[in-house]
Amino acid sequence: MIDQPNPEKPVRILILGGGFGGLECARTLKGPRFAITLVDRENHHLFQPLLYQVATAGLSAPEIAQPIRMLLRDQENVRILMDEATGIDLVQRRVTLKKQTLDYDYLVMAMGVRTGYFGHDEWAAHAPGLKNLDDATRIRSQVLRAFERAESGVEDAQRVKLTTLVIVGGGPTGVEMAGALAELSRKVLSQDFRHIRPEEAQVILIEAGPRLLTMFAEDLSEYARQRLEKMGVQVRLNTMVKHIGPGSVDLADGSIAAENIIWAAGVEANVLTKSLPVPQDRAGRLLVQPDGSLPGFPDAFAVGDMISLTDKNGVKVPGVAPAASQLGRHVARVILAELQHRERFEAMQERAAFGYLDKGSMATIGRSSAVAAAFGLKFRGFLAWLMWLFIHLLFLVGFRNRTAVMLQWVYSYFTWRRGARIITR
Amino acid sequence: MIDQPNPEKPVRILILGGGFGGLECARTLKGPRFAITLVDRENHHLFQPLLYQVATAGLSAPEIAQPIRMLLRDQENVRILMDEATGIDLVQRRVTLKKQTLDYDYLVMAMGVRTGYFGHDEWAAHAPGLKNLDDATRIRSQVLRAFERAESGVEDAQRVKLTTLVIVGGGPTGVEMAGALAELSRKVLSQDFRHIRPEEAQVILIEAGPRLLTMFAEDLSEYARQRLEKMGVQVRLNTMVKHIGPGSVDLADGSIAAENIIWAAGVEANVLTKSLPVPQDRAGRLLVQPDGSLPGFPDAFAVGDMISLTDKNGVKVPGVAPAASQLGRHVARVILAELQHRERFEAMQERAAFGYLDKGSMATIGRSSAVAAAFGLKFRGFLAWLMWLFIHLLFLVGFRNRTAVMLQWVYSYFTWRRGARIITR
Repeated sequence: MIDQPNPEKPVRILILGGGFGGLECARTLKGPRFAITLVDRENHHLFQPLLYQVATAGLSAPEIAQPIRMLLRDQENVRILMDEATGIDLVQRRVTLKKQTLDYDYLVMAMGVRTGYFGHDEWAAHAPGLKNLDDATRIRSQVLRAFERAESGVEDAQRVKLTTLVIVGGGPTGVEMAGALAELSRKVLSQDFRHIRPEEAQVILIEAGPRLLTMFAEDLSEYARQRLEKMGVQVRLNTMVKHIGPGSVDLADGSIAAENIIWAAGVEANVLTKSLPVPQDRAGRLLVQPDGSLPGFPDAFAVGDMISLTDKNGVKVPGVAPAASQLGRHVARVILAELQHRERFEAMQERAAFGYLDKGSMATIGRSSAVAAAFGLKFRGFLAWLMWLFIHLLFLVGFRNRTAVMLQWVYSYFTWRRGARIITR
Repeated sequence: MIDQPNPEKPVRILILGGGFGGLECARTLKGPRFAITLVDRENHHLFQPLLYQVATAGLSAPEIAQPIRMLLRDQENVRILMDEATGIDLVQRRVTLKKQTLDYDYLVMAMGVRTGYFGHDEWAAHAPGLKNLDDATRIRSQVLRAFERAESGVEDAQRVKLTTLVIVGGGPTGVEMAGALAELSRKVLSQDFRHIRPEEAQVILIEAGPRLLTMFAEDLSEYARQRLEKMGVQVRLNTMVKHIGPGSVDLADGSIAAENIIWAAGVEANVLTKSLPVPQDRAGRLLVQPDGSLPGFPDAFAVGDMISLTDKNGVKVPGVAPAASQLGRHVARVILAELQHRERFEAMQERAAFGYLDKGSMATIGRSSAVAAAFGLKFRGFLAWLMWLFIHLLFLVGFRNRTAVMLQWVYSYFTWRRGARIITR
């Protein structure tokens, strides 16, 4: 229990992670009575919904990332540390970072998840996932380099392998990657090469289940499949990946030789959360209380896609950016309410349970086509795509980035070119 | 000697390097009678004059780079290979690449230079140079990471070391880096940190000679020094670097502890050109004939900053982008003229000697201040800075990049923020 607050001594809030949840939580806890420390491994907040565009040479890394310091520069009660938690002691209320140890009054974990391979971590080396900027620039360089190698006079079989791209996982990231890679290889790059022919480039999307984009209605899934196939993507549903080796994917009905294999099939909790004395689901997500706190540790919360929670309306909270922001804000309000009550010497009331406001979901398939569902309505095609563009620009943090990204999109749309086709080491 | 040209068999032109010289040479040799192969280690042409802005978080890498393929996509007689020359046989007219071997009728070497440490290659690990995008993003990450570490509660001496930046070399790159780093540390970053104070950040520019920017008149050098000092840069003239170790620079009058040391003091030829049977200057630059060809090998040319040449007007050709472009074009015209004469069965006349057209030179010092010299006139201050902005935008390749860079500059000018403050691994 926290003692009755001393106005001279601000409440220490420790936030782990500067993603959507952590950032929103920090922003809601304004004023000198909080001493907030926000810790992130990276120096930047990342707009993950557009990460696939960095991986496919549409945008450059700084366009979808902003220094966390800059985003919170005007909030004087926040101190930002570029560091990484290595141990969390929920009983002592103490977190060990690589460079120092910090005590807290309230802890908010918002570290997100990492790419998960369902126990096959050895596949990671051959099929990178897409979680951060380094992943994205690595995938971009790898794909572009494969086309460069295919151009420099290799044998036919080798050329086919170099220009074959396999994406594993038919969720939003997989669908977006497949669409963007089909456009990149068949439209953008094809005009710049002398030896590679566009019809040689194969993009194969593999999904273990019976349909793509399971969070949408069946007809939207079917629409997405048809659109992708029209763009030249081979969609293989009901197809399990048995093994991934260097440059090859084994399926039940044979192998595919592909220089580039991209994993978009799963995520898992990081090692640190796994070791916490808190109930977890199979993927290691923390089963939090209705208010977002950890069972048995009311001073520690978790938000974002690292949690599993059914909200007060019986809705399973999805692992998407709006849900992370909303829960981040909710947790901040729980902390605020608790302190207000204590300051007024009032009895502690029950904490408010989180209610997720679903503003809809959307996934883009490719140029001029997307699917969306909001408030009971379904959208697809060009209208959905315009909605997707508008919403993503709106929520992209920072005026500069918004303008720069819009400029890139307009340029790419009219020229069929991509601005970030740069191979780095 | 080339035989009388067979119209069925195009003349094989091999260009090594897609910088300003190589690109301009390829662009001048249009039409099906040439089969041009352009080889570059990178997939992109780099606008080197703005590289320091990537290193100082002003611009992102794709904004100053364009895929060479895209720049030459409409020129059907050019084939581009991302590869690297490992051997040049001038007698057999054959170049060995990492992946294949190519015969040529004409060779144009345009590989540029690399950072040179005057025989102290062991300094490279502690004081990176600035020649390519990987150098620039590495310096950017290193500088930003040092400030992040300084923020996370280190001892005073360590904090001073982390926020001290040393630049060795008072040429244009050194002056531009010093100015941009002073602005970055003292203006841009200072508002975002809670522990570091702007006056703690030290930027030290070390020059062995008696003045900065020796290609300009003395009063412009002096102006540059005064401007830099006003911006908070410590300029140390007549100062030789004796040794560079990890995090320390030894001078005659003591050592400086600095986490970041940047080398802008010299360049040298790459290993491959050193081994050619062609006279070279002390830095390994090839002493070419007045037409740009190698002495004794009329079918092989060299252009750009890898050559040393006094032009037909007695002017020493400088190692700058406009000179590289001009000589690249000149060499292409020499080849064109020679082929035209042969096609007409005319006697071979003497090849034209190169004449460098000096359109002026300029160096920026910082926000709103630069020096420039053109056609006998000298400029400095705000006017020179506007000229610098205008000229650099004008010559930046590609509409998209030009618009994006202008947007960044306008944004930075009015907000004192920089758009690319992203640390990558």
